This record gives sequence, C-alpha cells and structure tokens, in this order.
Amino acid sequence: MSAPGAVRLGIGDDCALLRLRRDEELAVTTDLSIEGRHFRLDWHQPEAVGHRTLARGLSDLAAMGARPVSAFLSLGLPRNLTTTATRQPAWVDRFLQGFLELAEACQTPLAGGDLAESPMVVADIVLVGAVPRGKALLRSGARAGDLLYVTGSLGGAAAGLARLGELAAGTKNPAKPPSITKKNKMLLAPHLYPQPRIAQGLWLRRRGRATAALDLSDGLSTDLAHLCEESSVSAEVDLAALPIHSAASLAQALHGGEDYELLFTAPAAVRLPHTIKGVAVTRIGRIVPPRTGSPDLTLLTPGGPQPLEAGGWEHFS
Amino acid sequence: MSAPGAVRLGIGDDCALLRLRRDEELAVTTDLSIEGRHFRLDWHQPEAVGHRTLARGLSDLAAMGARPVSAFLSLGLPRNLTTTATRQPAWVDRFLQGFLELAEACQTPLAGGDLAESPMVVADIVLVGAVPRGKALLRSGARAGDLLYVTGSLGGAAAGLARLGELAAGTKNPAKPPSITKKNKMLLAPHLYPQPRIAQGLWLRRRGRATAALDLSDGLSTDLAHLCEESSVSAEVDLAALPIHSAASLAQALHGGEDYELLFTAPAAVRLPHTIKGVAVTRIGRIVPPRTGSPDLTLLTPGGPQPLEAGGWEHFS
Repeated sequence: MSAPGAVRLGIGDDCALLRLRRDEELAVTTDLSIEGRHFRLDWHQPEAVGHRTLARGLSDLAAMGARPVSAFLSLGLPRNLTTTATRQPAWVDRFLQGFLELAEACQTPLAGGDLAESPMVVADIVLVGAVPRGKALLRSGARAGDLLYVTGSLGGAAAGLARLGELAAGTKNPAKPPSITKKNKMLLAPHLYPQPRIAQGLWLRRRGRATAALDLSDGLSTDLAHLCEESSVSAEVDLAALPIHSAASLAQALHGGEDYELLFTAPAAVRLPHTIKGVAVTRIGRIVPPRTGSPDLTLLTPGGPQPLEAGGWEHFS
Repeated sequence: MSAPGAVRLGIGDDCALLRLRRDEELAVTTDLSIEGRHFRLDWHQPEAVGHRTLARGLSDLAAMGARPVSAFLSLGLPRNLTTTATRQPAWVDRFLQGFLELAEACQTPLAGGDLAESPMVVADIVLVGAVPRGKALLRSGARAGDLLYVTGSLGGAAAGLARLGELAAGTKNPAKPPSITKKNKMLLAPHLYPQPRIAQGLWLRRRGRATAALDLSDGLSTDLAHLCEESSVSAEVDLAALPIHSAASLAQALHGGEDYELLFTAPAAVRLPHTIKGVAVTRIGRIVPPRTGSPDLTLLTPGGPQPLEAGGWEHFS
C-alpha cells in the first residue's frame, strides 16, 4: 500500500524525508501508550505490546481511508528491558518483533523515532499516511437517513482482556505474562493482536461509499457519540443486528474499547457487500435528525427503544 | 513561514490533514522528553518545559532547512498536574503557555496529539516540516576542504543548567523550581528558552550555501562526530575561534548539550556573512580527509593539535 521509495531518508539524520504523490494530502496521528494504563508488563507479552502500539495508529489511518506512508516510534524504556538475559532476547527486541511484523503486514516502514531511558515503558506512535486531496473519510459527514455499519465483530477485545486478567490472576509467576496457548489464542487475539482495517478503509474511500467513518477505540457507544457530535446528528442502533463477538457480552459489545473495527455511515441508496476484503460488514442502525439540541443515541430492543448512554472505555484506570 | 491553510483539519478527527506545496517533500522528527531525565519538576518552570519540548523538535527542522508545517504533542501527565489550585493555573496550562508562545513565534500550529494519564510527565513532540524536493540539508554532504561554521555561541545551555542546579540547591522550598529573576534570567535563558534556528536553516538552504548541517543537541564534540561519520570525513576545530558563551567554560562549549545552534559546513570559496537573520555565524574549523579508516576530530590549540574526544551529553542520568 505504501509507495516504494516514499521514505527518501530514514533513521540517521535530523529528520526523515518522505514524498507523497502530487495529488495527495497528509494524514498524521499520534497515540501514546503507557505502562500500567494501556498495557501491563505482567499481563502482556512484549510482542503484543509492540503490535498494539502500532495497531492504534494504523487504525486511525484506516478510519480516514488513508494509505500508510511511514511510522515513527518514540520509546521510553527502563534499562533492564533493553538487556539480554541468558539465551533470552531483551524485552525491547520482542516488542520490536511484534511491532515490525504488523508494520510489514501493513507495508508501513518505520522511518524514525526516539529512544530514551525511562522509569517505565512509554511508547508514542506516530503514523503518517496519504490520501487524495479532499477525499479523506471524516467523522463529520453523516446525514439523517444514512445507514450505520460496522466491520468485523464487537466486544471481542474486551472479552479477551477480561480472560487475560483471569489467566494472569491464576498464573504461577505473577510477574510474567500468561503464555498464549492454542486453547486461549482465539479468545485473546482480538485484545492482543487487533487488526487495523486499512484495506477496508481504503476500499470505502476509493469507492466513495461512506459519508463518515471512525475507528472503534473507545467502544461503540462512546465512538458513535463522537461521530454524531461531529456530524450534528442522532443515531439508532438495532440491538438484534449487532455482530457481537461469540465470547463477548452485550455490555462488552456496546461499551468495550479497542476492537479497532471501522464504524461508518453510507446513504441508504448505496448497496454495500457483506464483506470487504474478507472482513464482514454489518448494518447496525441508522442516522436520524437530532431530536433535541444535542445528539443522542437510541438502542432499539425487542422491549422498545432505550437511550444508549456512552460508556467510556477507561483502560486500567 | 508556515503556509496559511496548510492544516486542513486539526484536533477532533482520527487524523489531522495537512497539505504541502506541490514541489515539496516532508520532513518528520520526533523527540521524547521524560521527567527526571530531560527536565525536573523541582528545577524547571512549566513554561520552560513546554518551550524546551517544542524547541527540540523545531531545531531538527532547522537543521534540515525545512519550514515548519505543524506540531503534534503526545502528553502523559499525573492527574494533579492537570488540576487548578486556588488562583493558580494548572501545571499543564503553564506548560502549554510556554509551548504555544514558541509555536506562535515560529508560526507552527499545534495540529493534534494525544493526552493520557501517567505517573510522571512524558512529552513526545512530533514536528512535520516541508522542504523543496531534494534540497534538504543533510549530515552527509560535508567534503574535505569545506569550512566548519556554527551559529550563536557555545556552552550557554550547559552553563545555564549548572547555574539552575545551584539555585535549586539553595532554594527554600526544594519542591518548587527557583524563580527566574532579572539577575539570573540572562544566564538561565540559553538552557530554559533555547531558540531554534529556523530562520538561519531556511536561509542556508535557500541560498544553497551549506553542504551539510545538523543541530547541536548533544554537544559540539558529539554532534561533529555524527556529521563526520555521516560524511566519511574528519574535522579540525580551532580552539581560538570558538564562540564560547560568556558564562561557559571551555568544557561546556566543547561538550555541553542542548545549545540547539546549527553546525554546518560550506565550501571554502563560499563567502558567508557574519550574521544570518540577526544571529552570529562563526567559522570554527575545517573538514579534512579521514586519515585513518574512521573519522576523527582534532582540536587545534596554541600548544599544538590534540585529539577531540566526543564527550556525550547525558542529561540527568
């Protein structure tokens, strides 16, 4: 997806130099991940921390329909995580392995960054992407009458996190993350190895099908409120239509964060396929005019409509 | 310096959208500042921490001859630094005041970032700049026979830091940074409020005068070694020519970090003015062919030539 040769000059000079195509504009996002808040050394394998750090940034590019150009990583680390124990790679090497595997899968070169000693792990990820001028998918484009869609399934990351917490509580060595076995891999993957929907965002942007989009980082109820606020609209969500992850509760599907699926709107006249680039697309509701001054969300249940309150995702705090 | 309207979409969507001019390429740099390592809450006023955070990034753009397009700030903060005491602005507000004053002076809009709770202050600054394609000043362009120049004076930041440490040791309330009085302002300013040499970098790039450049963040001896290594050359520095800051020792001028002056080379045939945009330019030495396999630095003193060892700047560690 990244143009070959887009990175003209990488690590080693004062700045990295990047080139876009002539008709493109730049999309830039930064996300700060902090030990104890976004991950825990005693819960998360270093490869998963690296993967998740990069996935957060790539998911923001996906939500704009941007192609990744390059990533920059600022990493603060305690010294003991940079040293190699007997026959064991250092924590930072395993972190970078997880990071670079996802970078390669998404054709996103690591073009620079910064490294500093720190009493705890902090990782700031910067993603630079490109999108044809004026064509980015924004949060502000939803209109009354549009239908509401989501990629993939909901609540899997929250369910995986809950399971990870149980495993960590039951482990023999509480300082060491629980190992990923074949049995728990499927359940933990949505939390440990979320897949940014780059290909789906590009498809939506190129086909001109979506009126608005964002990625589900804080949970459906919170992120849908953001979309409605930016678009000055309200929304109705059909409970029966929600693609709830097989391991997730309704609350996890509605309010759980870090699924990194795309939430988007399209006019009712537009026909969308059931899958985009191998990932399911589900219609989960519709955009309606704001009834009061402020946007509000309604959950349509068999027992009648209920207000859907934004239930913020607060990580570990 | 920044094109009006370069920031198409700022804080509030998944990414910021930026536009460059058609013949430009992108310069990107990130710098991580960590409490206890790059600054201390009991030494540094919050305004100075904000200024220094941004100055680090802007100085990297200056060294490439790039014009600033926009800044992104990822900030991790303890909760108590975000709350307001009686009639006192919160620490974070004072940090942002220092940050935004420099941003305005350098016409660099803050276009996005991230905010997270953290047990200590971490600030990652991302600068996006623009430079005509293929015209950036690199570290790798110095050639034997070129002359070596520096802007401003050397060692002022290290001298200011030393003085700040003395003041902090003698203060009545050790948790509070020493106040900046008229008397100590001039001495502390090079450390607390370094001025990134954006205008000078642009001048050098536009006139096509410099063959190589970088900014002095780690100290002359260390940064000159970087330049020589990237250019595969050696260098001689004239002790008598060094523009040592009036408060600084020779060791501070040679090895002290964070002056954020530009170190650059130009062919001997090129005539440079004594000042560029109001800042002194001093010829301090010359580039010579590498005598051995690896680049080396020589200090020419009245007593004869001496090897100039890179004396790394290690902040507070």
